[in-house]
Amino acid sequence: MTQIKPYRLTASQARHEICSGNLTVEQYALSLLSRINGRDPTVKAWAHLNPDLVVEQARNLDRIAPEDRGPLHGVAIAVKDVIYTKDMPTQHNSPIYDGSHPRVDAASVAILRQAGALILGKTTTTEFAATLKGPATCNPHDPTRTPGGSSSGSGAVVGDMQAPIALGTQTGGSTIRPGSYNGIYAMKPTWSSISREGQKLYSLILDTLGIYTRSVEDLQLLADVFHLEDDEMPDTNFDVAKSKFAVYKTMIWPSVGPGTESAMEKAVQLLRKHGALVEEIEFPMELQDLPEWHLTIMKADGRTAFLPYYRMAKQDMDPLLIDHVEDVWKVSHAAHLTAFDNISMARPKVDKILGNYAAVLVPSVPDEAPVGIASTGSAAFNGIWTVMRPLERVPLPSKKIN
Amino acid sequence: MTQIKPYRLTASQARHEICSGNLTVEQYALSLLSRINGRDPTVKAWAHLNPDLVVEQARNLDRIAPEDRGPLHGVAIAVKDVIYTKDMPTQHNSPIYDGSHPRVDAASVAILRQAGALILGKTTTTEFAATLKGPATCNPHDPTRTPGGSSSGSGAVVGDMQAPIALGTQTGGSTIRPGSYNGIYAMKPTWSSISREGQKLYSLILDTLGIYTRSVEDLQLLADVFHLEDDEMPDTNFDVAKSKFAVYKTMIWPSVGPGTESAMEKAVQLLRKHGALVEEIEFPMELQDLPEWHLTIMKADGRTAFLPYYRMAKQDMDPLLIDHVEDVWKVSHAAHLTAFDNISMARPKVDKILGNYAAVLVPSVPDEAPVGIASTGSAAFNGIWTVMRPLERVPLPSKKIN
Repeated sequence: MTQIKPYRLTASQARHEICSGNLTVEQYALSLLSRINGRDPTVKAWAHLNPDLVVEQARNLDRIAPEDRGPLHGVAIAVKDVIYTKDMPTQHNSPIYDGSHPRVDAASVAILRQAGALILGKTTTTEFAATLKGPATCNPHDPTRTPGGSSSGSGAVVGDMQAPIALGTQTGGSTIRPGSYNGIYAMKPTWSSISREGQKLYSLILDTLGIYTRSVEDLQLLADVFHLEDDEMPDTNFDVAKSKFAVYKTMIWPSVGPGTESAMEKAVQLLRKHGALVEEIEFPMELQDLPEWHLTIMKADGRTAFLPYYRMAKQDMDPLLIDHVEDVWKVSHAAHLTAFDNISMARPKVDKILGNYAAVLVPSVPDEAPVGIASTGSAAFNGIWTVMRPLERVPLPSKKIN
Repeated sequence: MTQIKPYRLTASQARHEICSGNLTVEQYALSLLSRINGRDPTVKAWAHLNPDLVVEQARNLDRIAPEDRGPLHGVAIAVKDVIYTKDMPTQHNSPIYDGSHPRVDAASVAILRQAGALILGKTTTTEFAATLKGPATCNPHDPTRTPGGSSSGSGAVVGDMQAPIALGTQTGGSTIRPGSYNGIYAMKPTWSSISREGQKLYSLILDTLGIYTRSVEDLQLLADVFHLEDDEMPDTNFDVAKSKFAVYKTMIWPSVGPGTESAMEKAVQLLRKHGALVEEIEFPMELQDLPEWHLTIMKADGRTAFLPYYRMAKQDMDPLLIDHVEDVWKVSHAAHLTAFDNISMARPKVDKILGNYAAVLVPSVPDEAPVGIASTGSAAFNGIWTVMRPLERVPLPSKKIN
């Protein structure tokens, strides 16, 4: 048995303990379930969790012969409740889908399960992962604050050590924002590098699967399972001291608070202290409307995405989603196409700018998690990157809340 | 009761007969089921059809008070078996999904059902709508020939009057090609103008829902139900005699056979006979690689889309899909992005060229449906348009086979 309580382990640590025979998947599952049991009344991050099913699956995994075990053998994963799981309901925080249970796995869940993961349960989300109205979930570091959204539950359970890994999604800032608010690692992989099949649709060109962990090693583990790779192998001789970084505060910077301001400053100081060259960059004038183009696409794509629910049960929809279908913002098809064209024009330009650096630091959120759970906070800093293609990670969780 | 047999009616005609009280939905359903019963041994276009369920649904529709009836009240619709239906299995012509039954409707099916449609059953497809290997389905006009693919069954049932409307999908030429081979109307609406949620994923940027009918009026009926509209109302004073058309033979033209050649010629003659101005156009040099860009995107997107099945049951996959995941064509990420950028560059240019004309006639297929059902024929003429945005209709079914 490990020295620290199993629920506190990162995925890579848990995997190591299980492979070494120090921990069974069942013991690991019971530790997590005990943590969940103690914390759920405060954090309220689960939309569905069946402890009996979890223990049963854990025992099944323990029965697999060592030579047949996958790269995620026994690793516990929580799944945002807009992603299909064949053995659990998927309800999208919408009364229209109360009790709905498509008996099929999303592509992402199928890949994780095939790799030996233990699917724990479904985590809370804003309605259809598309509104700013938070579910009942609280920030585990300070229950008076939001955990962010729309991947509220996924961010909270990883931050609270109720699961080492969780899946989220992002159309605006739904993965990166909760990553920051919950003080964890969040990765929004390049668009379409992980299949989005079987997750609720908002915008085809923006929706992305997102990943939460509590270590970089765990992000790497998942990147391997999802077969994320670049044309060339990463430089194994990478040295911060000899590398060039950029910091880009973006056109949203005037809205930042002291938390983000000091986090950005500290990051730059840390890099410089380790011998890195850090340059502050600006985007050229013709890219200053990026946030607006992102919003135009969201508004127009939502018109198509939410039409079925509008026809089925308008009375059960959030007013924001009704606004999408009724096109209250009067986004013409011409404006929609122009936004697509502008984004297309911007992508290779942004690739070129960012390509000059080992990494580019950008703010994830305007400030620390706002007080109250009614709103999940602002995605203003994320939209610019959601419409781009590069890997987006969270290098800078904003100032820890507690 | 109508003079002609109900199964022969177009959707608009059937709707009229039902609304007028001349035909019940049950009578209509029984007529279609009788047609299906007689023809299915030859055409073999259904992957799933439960006559009892069809009759039960028809009776339920008959019980709806006239004032509560939707715009598609009683209209029978067949659904390609890569699109989810809550009351029927969705099996993708893959052993991996044998008997799979996600109990949820795709967005498109939900909208049709809400409008009062009678969902008849599921039609055959190539594996995951992604291979060229035909199912057992034959062309209803000549059973020695292919009905095309991947929407093989949907094209065949509409061409054979087993259903007035069917849903297909298109990533390469899977809607337009069967439309031509079966001598019916096919529409591939602008990308993302109808939600693709709940249909099998191949390429996010290419996949589109497709529609088959036997009349233009029926296409209009569905366009209204799916809320397809442009920024401006169409010109109601449109007159062929005063209008300018283009004919664009495309860079694929050297591969056409006599069927397509004479169909194109005849169409131009007909337009000129009615006083239209018809110009033959060419795309500029920088757009000549459109077919290659389309193929590059398909190849690279398939790598992501088919990874889950490769991990689950490689032995049950078509070799072409394995080639996708194993990247036998060695499509680098850089080449993938360059193809996206080239397509993005091309879209506004093509919009501008096509915008000069009332309509542009292009070939749908290289020739009439090939003999044999092992291969579903060539999509060479369709890929160019699948990567573009304008509405693509079939103005020219190739020479009728019989």
